[in-house]
Amino acid sequence: MKKGTYHIRVEWGNCDPAKIVFYPNYFAWFDGATHRLFESVGCPLTVLAEKYGAAGFPLVEAKASFMSPSVVGDELVIESHIETWNRRSFAVSHTVFNKDKVVVNGSEIRVFQVLSKAGTSSIKIGAIPDELKSLFNPVEKQI
Amino acid sequence: MKKGTYHIRVEWGNCDPAKIVFYPNYFAWFDGATHRLFESVGCPLTVLAEKYGAAGFPLVEAKASFMSPSVVGDELVIESHIETWNRRSFAVSHTVFNKDKVVVNGSEIRVFQVLSKAGTSSIKIGAIPDELKSLFNPVEKQI
Amino acid sequence: MKKGTYHIRVEWGNCDPAKIVFYPNYFAWFDGATHRLFESVGCPLTVLAEKYGAAGFPLVEAKASFMSPSVVGDELVIESHIETWNRRSFAVSHTVFNKDKVVVNGSEIRVFQVLSKAGTSSIKIGAIPDELKSLFNPVEKQI
Amino acid sequence: MKKGTYHIRVEWGNCDPAKIVFYPNYFAWFDGATHRLFESVGCPLTVLAEKYGAAGFPLVEAKASFMSPSVVGDELVIESHIETWNRRSFAVSHTVFNKDKVVVNGSEIRVFQVLSKAGTSSIKIGAIPDELKSLFNPVEKQI
Repeated sequence: MKKGTYHIRVEWGNCDPAKIVFYPNYFAWFDGATHRLFESVGCPLTVLAEKYGAAGFPLVEAKASFMSPSVVGDELVIESHIETWNRRSFAVSHTVFNKDKVVVNGSEIRVFQVLSKAGTSSIKIGAIPDELKSLFNPVEKQI
Repeated sequence: MKKGTYHIRVEWGNCDPAKIVFYPNYFAWFDGATHRLFESVGCPLTVLAEKYGAAGFPLVEAKASFMSPSVVGDELVIESHIETWNRRSFAVSHTVFNKDKVVVNGSEIRVFQVLSKAGTSSIKIGAIPDELKSLFNPVEKQI
Repeated sequence: MKKGTYHIRVEWGNCDPAKIVFYPNYFAWFDGATHRLFESVGCPLTVLAEKYGAAGFPLVEAKASFMSPSVVGDELVIESHIETWNRRSFAVSHTVFNKDKVVVNGSEIRVFQVLSKAGTSSIKIGAIPDELKSLFNPVEKQI
Repeated sequence: MKKGTYHIRVEWGNCDPAKIVFYPNYFAWFDGATHRLFESVGCPLTVLAEKYGAAGFPLVEAKASFMSPSVVGDELVIESHIETWNRRSFAVSHTVFNKDKVVVNGSEIRVFQVLSKAGTSSIKIGAIPDELKSLFNPVEKQI
């Protein structure tokens, strides 16, 4: 199973008057982590559009548990993987480490949005191609 | 039960290349909504500190379900209330309306952080005073 | 000369560990103020596109002077107007008031971006229609 | 003269519906770049406080010129240095490169804020110690 890794340094501007990370930033980092995970299997948004007819992977759900606060200068690492594949949606799991300690756990449920004609504003959801799924779960080669 | 109301207009800068609200913004708005809810019962952070010895109400959990995307110029209304009071934590429920349609549902679980001595970096959690809880659930006056 | 007005309440998440507004937020508010200024003359981006063939008004320059910090809960008012019209660009002036005190002064120079064919990524700049300019500087009616 | 270097990858959430970086983000990155510049001479905020009695370096002015837009996935490099030292303020110059092309130029004027007693909300400005200045302009050792 493919894992993505995203390195974050907590910036001054990410922190609030309590001197800890303002929590919505973790979700922005989750979003960046999901993009990196897709890139790690050769599927940035451009490839996703050209090869799989996908417009993107909008959110239907997101959640996080905050175990320990992070402060300015902390070097965080977010490890991400696809937890579940459904026919038209998938769940991404994110674990945020501060040194070796897990400080935040989170997940996103996203749908597979297919390209629609220009001018159409509604989001059209489609089935996720098996080929795309297999990129994240490469079959082990037999010896 | 007290309800808070927070009016948001979706800004250009809140939207991403898919031309819809970048999802972490909803959590930033939830945070603003919770602050307004406390203010609506006469308890902004300053009063919370002076009267109840509280340093704030940091997050332990946050989640949201996204039903429908919002776009630039949309006028959203967030209705919020305290869903549950525990001894040292509480859950806030947020419902985001776009006109009369519910577009996002969310909740936050927060703890009651007591003031600690200057220089102490760890977060100290305490019991929530009953008096504070009662502000949100005023006892109906008997006739 | 038309003036736009934008009301801001400083949120917890807008402030940094120094407990004052993290300065890039003022530029985000300037952007919102410019959008409101165009709307105040009946020209939101949708109308700008349909009636004047404009794709938007990207920035070429932005600056601000910070006279006094703002803190959580401050109610700010941004007054904006078009300072200068050039053939293909214009300057917007922004004044941020905290109560009756000017706390920040800023300006943006923006260009008039014309719609280009789908798939073209470069920004094409065009002449600003006189009709559009006149909306902001209505000729006084003679008696 | 010391130079700071800050590597940025343009995230999906940094871009607006025009599919380019929402401009206030550049100022957030300037702020991060200034912090890195101070760290590069051994002076993160913690050292600045302990050794030089400084509470921080709040902004009095910021500006930027935008030459070329950046899009999702662009790898930017910000090079920063102290342009001018005054008695109580200093100017930081920032140059943003996208590959070898300069895409944004900017500068910040900041003041040297001295620590004041707890509870004091106003910002107290002080003279910048020569020792601090010299860290950025190391005297060449004679042979």
